[in-house]
Amino acid sequence: MSTLFTHVTALLLDEAFTTLKDGYVAVEGSRITYVGSQRPQGAYDEVLDCTGKVMMPGLVNAHTHLPMTLMRGYGGGHNLQDWLQQYIFPAEARLDNRAVAAGAALGLAEMIACGITCVADMYLRTPAIAQQVLQAGISANLSCGGVYFGPEEDFSPDACADCRHQRELTEGWHGAGDGQILVDASIHGEYTSCPPLWRWMADYAQAHGLGMHVHVSETAAEHKACLDRRGLTPIQALDQYGVWDGRAIAAHCVYTTPEDWAIMARRGVSCVHNPYSNLKLGSGVAPIPAMLAVGVNVALGTDGMSSHNSADLFADLKLTALLHNGVGRDPLAMTARQALELATVGGARALGRDTGRIAPGAVADLILLDFDAPNLTPCHDVAENLVFAAHGSNVVMNMARGRVIYRNGTFLTLDLERIQDEVRRYALPLVFGAGKG
Amino acid sequence: MSTLFTHVTALLLDEAFTTLKDGYVAVEGSRITYVGSQRPQGAYDEVLDCTGKVMMPGLVNAHTHLPMTLMRGYGGGHNLQDWLQQYIFPAEARLDNRAVAAGAALGLAEMIACGITCVADMYLRTPAIAQQVLQAGISANLSCGGVYFGPEEDFSPDACADCRHQRELTEGWHGAGDGQILVDASIHGEYTSCPPLWRWMADYAQAHGLGMHVHVSETAAEHKACLDRRGLTPIQALDQYGVWDGRAIAAHCVYTTPEDWAIMARRGVSCVHNPYSNLKLGSGVAPIPAMLAVGVNVALGTDGMSSHNSADLFADLKLTALLHNGVGRDPLAMTARQALELATVGGARALGRDTGRIAPGAVADLILLDFDAPNLTPCHDVAENLVFAAHGSNVVMNMARGRVIYRNGTFLTLDLERIQDEVRRYALPLVFGAGKG
Repeated sequence: MSTLFTHVTALLLDEAFTTLKDGYVAVEGSRITYVGSQRPQGAYDEVLDCTGKVMMPGLVNAHTHLPMTLMRGYGGGHNLQDWLQQYIFPAEARLDNRAVAAGAALGLAEMIACGITCVADMYLRTPAIAQQVLQAGISANLSCGGVYFGPEEDFSPDACADCRHQRELTEGWHGAGDGQILVDASIHGEYTSCPPLWRWMADYAQAHGLGMHVHVSETAAEHKACLDRRGLTPIQALDQYGVWDGRAIAAHCVYTTPEDWAIMARRGVSCVHNPYSNLKLGSGVAPIPAMLAVGVNVALGTDGMSSHNSADLFADLKLTALLHNGVGRDPLAMTARQALELATVGGARALGRDTGRIAPGAVADLILLDFDAPNLTPCHDVAENLVFAAHGSNVVMNMARGRVIYRNGTFLTLDLERIQDEVRRYALPLVFGAGKG
Repeated sequence: MSTLFTHVTALLLDEAFTTLKDGYVAVEGSRITYVGSQRPQGAYDEVLDCTGKVMMPGLVNAHTHLPMTLMRGYGGGHNLQDWLQQYIFPAEARLDNRAVAAGAALGLAEMIACGITCVADMYLRTPAIAQQVLQAGISANLSCGGVYFGPEEDFSPDACADCRHQRELTEGWHGAGDGQILVDASIHGEYTSCPPLWRWMADYAQAHGLGMHVHVSETAAEHKACLDRRGLTPIQALDQYGVWDGRAIAAHCVYTTPEDWAIMARRGVSCVHNPYSNLKLGSGVAPIPAMLAVGVNVALGTDGMSSHNSADLFADLKLTALLHNGVGRDPLAMTARQALELATVGGARALGRDTGRIAPGAVADLILLDFDAPNLTPCHDVAENLVFAAHGSNVVMNMARGRVIYRNGTFLTLDLERIQDEVRRYALPLVFGAGKG
């Protein structure tokens, strides 16, 4: 399959932050083969005229929990502990593989419609998620969020359920779909595990060439408890066990310190900023401009739909570009360009994927937005409109790995009606009781 | 014209915060005539089945500058003073009535599509805006943002251009369209005017039964300069001249003090919270939970598209419900209900209009959202989904003053193609030079 996009206005997300105007982008198989102002020679299976539209790389949602789409808006209006203990944990305990698959599919549909082409997910019953991702067509780094609550001295990888999960997930899915799915090693968080698990996960990641995905310093209480327990921050404590030795994703990082950032910059640990979730749960505002200033790679995430509650990453892109200005009382604290880089190349780097930019050789993860929409008129500057004025609903095409999977409101790999039916008739009654759905 | 909505799920925004389920809402002329669970007798010109949709009162955008839609994304990435001096003010100097009309019409189209049924606008060349509002069909409180930069001792209402504008606007438009348009008296801000103008505007408002619309304490610098100049905050200084004696809208209020809130609560001055604009310009975060706690009425606004840059008030609704939680590190600092009240009944109170709620006798400003959309599935709680998950793009019907003006993506009072053509061919080249548009 090959596609030629003509009359392309595109934000390339290259180092010069170039805007291509009235140019051409060619795709063959899953890769971009040409970007430029001359029409490339050769025949293409499909030619798409992009007049009135703007192309950019598909967005990377670098931290989410897809099946929690089932819990969108569930238990709102309660404090964090009540919300988790009385609502979220009991609901999660009632999930089965089929419900997880239904929730993941619904979340994937919403993300695809909003221009996301790549996600990093952490959740339980991960193989059921992998199957849905494969079907949907976007790329995903999947992880199972390893926990261990037993006594440290009793830890044994063969007895630890999440070590078994990790092995099964890796063996079953790492590299599936010609690299569409990558498996990351994972530790849910410092406060839900212990050093023997960290050491095992770090070694396992290194032995199998996997990345690592961890929740880090999301709340003040969690951060402080680690300091009290270990005299070290979560970043520092995990560093002692080799957790950051390979590619790694540290989600949240709200309370990380300058010393943590030095470790992250040195080790190549990416921070995933989840601004909506951090606001909703009252966690705080992560020090993103300061982290960028010292060379930490930062990506952008929605977190789960239970604490956002929308997968429209364009809203997070805008919030990221504005929140730090307002809180820091500096209208230039974050630039539109920086925010766009978080959502694209920053995410790609965090996930170890060659996407997030429009260049020959990169994976063909491309989206088109309708710039004739009233909310994108006028267009004084493409980047300003993409960051501050665009909504996910302006996305009219999503091409993932060279394949158009969404166009003009229609899903080409997913059956939305069937997914919603499965959510309403199976998953919601199972998890939330009769009468739900 | 009469309309009966059947199978209605609706958030009524009454004092008990009721959700009507599978009920009926009837509209005759511009008013709601029935809300309840029994089908009302009588014949209706139109019967609309609302299965799968959710109804709520149309949103009130209580502070905006419609024609600045022309400047969406213009001069981004500069500090506030450079942005104003080098970009916004020179562009505004080149506006004419026709360009103002075009910008206002485009802004109105975007707002209608996002479910706004009522606005409070402050801008120059206001009669050109009024004509567009009348055509569009939503309600508007219009004001011209009076300034006076001359020596105080030379002030004379006959020589002051903005006093003349105020008189012309009032005489030409107050009450037009059977109350669709109301004219407010207006002072642009404490720092762009002086006591003789304040006194004149206060007296003029009282004599003609008008409200008042003023920018207040938006930035730290403006607030401090007033304190230095007068030993009083802007709220306190204006209070001494009777500016707050009638219904009044104080936009921003980022740096207002507890003493200011006491005056506002006592005098019935409404604060308009503009969270996106305040973040974008690096102004700060207004102390909204504290103002609500002491009884100040708070409304919600987008501000102009030059500092937002989207008219999707659902995004502001969500941001309002989250921002204060995050900054205050308290997940219950603002509730979903409070945020919804700001955007509806709070706005109605600020503008002196009987809208923002679904009740017999209220103006029939009603919107429907498609709750079968993936981003609104599942629905554990209607209010949670409306605040945290909905986007303006979920709005499938906008009824303003009893008339359906937008349905399923189609504008019934505006010609979007003609408006965009007018913006591109006339307004943009005029204001930004040849080649723009």
